[in-house]
Amino acid sequence: MKFTFLFVDKTRAQIWQDTETEYQKRLSHFVKYNLKIIPPTKNKTQSECIELESKNLLLSQPAGKNFLITLDKSGQKLSSEELAKKLNSWQTTHPQITFIIGGAFGLSEELLKKSDFIWSLSPLTFTHEMARTILFEQLYRAFTINKGLPYHY
Amino acid sequence: MKFTFLFVDKTRAQIWQDTETEYQKRLSHFVKYNLKIIPPTKNKTQSECIELESKNLLLSQPAGKNFLITLDKSGQKLSSEELAKKLNSWQTTHPQITFIIGGAFGLSEELLKKSDFIWSLSPLTFTHEMARTILFEQLYRAFTINKGLPYHY
Repeated sequence: MKFTFLFVDKTRAQIWQDTETEYQKRLSHFVKYNLKIIPPTKNKTQSECIELESKNLLLSQPAGKNFLITLDKSGQKLSSEELAKKLNSWQTTHPQITFIIGGAFGLSEELLKKSDFIWSLSPLTFTHEMARTILFEQLYRAFTINKGLPYHY
Repeated sequence: MKFTFLFVDKTRAQIWQDTETEYQKRLSHFVKYNLKIIPPTKNKTQSECIELESKNLLLSQPAGKNFLITLDKSGQKLSSEELAKKLNSWQTTHPQITFIIGGAFGLSEELLKKSDFIWSLSPLTFTHEMARTILFEQLYRAFTINKGLPYHY
């Protein structure tokens, strides 16, 4: 199994870079992954940003069969245990899983429709920088659950 | 209005200390607050830890009329906008609001029963160190929503 992460813009706040780096490192013990940053669209309207960034994200998917998971507030909410179970079942049929987190304005309807699973982390709104850390932390947590390992704080 | 935060044990991971400090600082522009750390119970069974830490948390509440909000997975989930509305209504009737986050093992039934509101951040499990940062960030976010201010990333 291999993960690809597609994000819009780099993580700018140092504090969220640090948390992201920590959980990326932990996750890398369990799975190989690629991280691609899509440049944010500038000097355009909000809806143009959404369209252009979403198109760019779709084009940046790895070649070949790919299971596409998009993080969006319209998605399904999961407990950490439910995520662990889903990950277990996805990885048996999909050698390649891509996770998308959009930019400040979100994602297009087209991208959401093309997703195999839409996941909402919480009813709370998080910045996309926080969402990245939570994504890496929850994936790390899911692997520790599935492997019966203790979670390291 | 004044906030009190009661947590079990100090935040040990540097990365979560840094995020916590950032959002505490931002929150302090909107509200006065006290933060009290309850020492974690040691060399006891899990249920003894829960009982002793919860008793200690209850005893550490500020004197006088106090609205007690406890973070627990059994609680009600809120969107950031719902939290902002609730905060608006609580603060008109309760000059003092206390937020409790327990230790690694959680909180006693007694403490949950004595709470005025039980709040679940997400169906996902977070460490109590992450939960603290998310609490401060969401309270900061709620104030920016209620005051119609832009959210600073």
